[in-house]
Amino acid sequence: MTRSQHPIPGAVHPLDRDGLRGRVNDALAAFMDRQSAVLADVGEGMAPVAEALRDFLVDGGKRLRPGFCYWGWRGAGGVDAGPAGDAAVRAATSLELLQASALIHDDLMDSSDTRRGKPAVHRRFEALHRASGWCSNAAGFGEAAAVLLGDLCLSWSDEMFSGSGVDPAALAAAKPLFDVMRTEVMAGQYLDVLEQAMGGGSVERSRRVIRFKSAKYTIERPLHVGAALAGAGPELLVAYSAYGLPLGEAFQLRDDVLGVFGDPAETGKPAGDDLREGKRTVLLALAAERGTAAQRRIVDELLGDPALDDAGVKDLQGVIAGTGALAEVEAMIGTLTERALAALDSAAVTADARTVLHELAEAATVRRV
Amino acid sequence: MTRSQHPIPGAVHPLDRDGLRGRVNDALAAFMDRQSAVLADVGEGMAPVAEALRDFLVDGGKRLRPGFCYWGWRGAGGVDAGPAGDAAVRAATSLELLQASALIHDDLMDSSDTRRGKPAVHRRFEALHRASGWCSNAAGFGEAAAVLLGDLCLSWSDEMFSGSGVDPAALAAAKPLFDVMRTEVMAGQYLDVLEQAMGGGSVERSRRVIRFKSAKYTIERPLHVGAALAGAGPELLVAYSAYGLPLGEAFQLRDDVLGVFGDPAETGKPAGDDLREGKRTVLLALAAERGTAAQRRIVDELLGDPALDDAGVKDLQGVIAGTGALAEVEAMIGTLTERALAALDSAAVTADARTVLHELAEAATVRRV
Repeated sequence: MTRSQHPIPGAVHPLDRDGLRGRVNDALAAFMDRQSAVLADVGEGMAPVAEALRDFLVDGGKRLRPGFCYWGWRGAGGVDAGPAGDAAVRAATSLELLQASALIHDDLMDSSDTRRGKPAVHRRFEALHRASGWCSNAAGFGEAAAVLLGDLCLSWSDEMFSGSGVDPAALAAAKPLFDVMRTEVMAGQYLDVLEQAMGGGSVERSRRVIRFKSAKYTIERPLHVGAALAGAGPELLVAYSAYGLPLGEAFQLRDDVLGVFGDPAETGKPAGDDLREGKRTVLLALAAERGTAAQRRIVDELLGDPALDDAGVKDLQGVIAGTGALAEVEAMIGTLTERALAALDSAAVTADARTVLHELAEAATVRRV
Repeated sequence: MTRSQHPIPGAVHPLDRDGLRGRVNDALAAFMDRQSAVLADVGEGMAPVAEALRDFLVDGGKRLRPGFCYWGWRGAGGVDAGPAGDAAVRAATSLELLQASALIHDDLMDSSDTRRGKPAVHRRFEALHRASGWCSNAAGFGEAAAVLLGDLCLSWSDEMFSGSGVDPAALAAAKPLFDVMRTEVMAGQYLDVLEQAMGGGSVERSRRVIRFKSAKYTIERPLHVGAALAGAGPELLVAYSAYGLPLGEAFQLRDDVLGVFGDPAETGKPAGDDLREGKRTVLLALAAERGTAAQRRIVDELLGDPALDDAGVKDLQGVIAGTGALAEVEAMIGTLTERALAALDSAAVTADARTVLHELAEAATVRRV
């Protein structure tokens, strides 16, 4: 999703303050230049890999995790000037490579056809196989390529982090937080897959998945990594958790609502894709808990049907709204966002970071950033 | 493969010198203890993940890459005493986590059923799904779990490396070599998948795949990482390349021969598995180049047939031997090993490392270590 799709009248988008998204892009482009040369040394067959990753990384994505990392660093007193500022931006940008790995592997596991309105990586390589007239299994080739391209992004993420140029002592302080962030997001992904397999998840179990897969990964840990890069102590990490965890949960709940009710032109995904996938969100868990027997039957019947048509999407939307689940989730988003903002008010962060983190909270929960 | 399957009469296996394999095992077990606690914090659903990874990592594998890394360090003057010695062993052990990730993802891409005589990770989680009576797709659950468990091992690999306790300046010198090793092995894997897709690979193209996927990854780069951990300069890296690249190629050629002619009790894989998979090895490329039209027809017909029976395996073995491809590959193994040993003789390495690297070269090419 790009900024142009979400203009904020009369204001710079909070993720664009101090030119951050442009700098993240530049850092990724420079990194891809170096890696493309390494790949070219391996063989000419690597060109489609370099091209696909450049397309995926440069000018793609919201840059939410680099944004929270960078403002976590600024909030802890990081001074964005000269080479040290650029090094911190590179360290923050490394989270975008982790996110690219997670998305490439996620699309593979979900068999999603598209990502940001373009073919998912496994589909892109499946198409390359078909167009090249190669032998055997095109889908299998696409899947193998997606496994390996996701692996490349995952290892490049810590390569960019540790090679960012940030002072070694600060890097060493931040690395354990970077590490636990990765374990948590992968474990959260597994819990998510497990929930889909077990079916009929409770609201409580769905919220646990959100906590690890989204709230910690998207907001809390990036803030922690940024704070540690600026040499912050444990008090600020606690304050960032008090802001980041409720905000991260609110952000995911907003994403879930948009996954069912969002405008495809804004979300970049076909309407009802989350419903066809059978995603067990808090929204769906609430609808099942609050619904009548007839409403539950509609959910059981339609949710996860890969052939779900527009009428089916409308039926499910009707149940989710009619049970009061939608209103309840909207209320949760409001409460969680207020809690995050209250924690931010009492956190010992720099004034400019407080302003931007406030704007980010609104952007992430009122609408998609 | 465990040592007990490959006793060397009257001698300690070179990978066991100075108790290395026991220490690698201990380091992995201690690391898994810590990670199991992190996973348990995410939720009780994570227990099978921790258990599967412990089973995979502890007491499994030959520890070839940690071995070359450790002896690369010793050869460069690393002194194995006290905490610094244990830190170097931990840094070397981190390569085993990278290898675990590669194997878990490789088995997934190849749809292999077994690894080291036990179910492959994706099959293990498919079986968990079936035994638990969960809903929807058991195979899809197994595949998603394998993607995520491989990702965990990949990120844990650099976590263990950077958290090994090795002196920060030495770690910083070794990290770029660690990084390029990862990019090379993933790129090599992609080239391998590409070769299978394109079919009918030449001997030259097959050797390029070996170079990146095996020779650099298994031997040259682990030696380089070890050397850099001991503060070695570029001359020693060049000498290690002159030893490691031909040896690594010889090692892979031996592996390819064993993949076709090896005893299942020793290789841990069913006889002919590489043939059923349609692996395009140098051995097969040579057989196709040297064969008569009739012999080529047998290869085209049988290679890559998933239902290949014992008679078919025997037919292919007959062609590979009959074309002279087997003898030619055995001669290549001999020449490459001699070249590696000659380079070792003139390398400026410590005496004890020279002895063990000599033994490792023999163990890796005469038979499987």
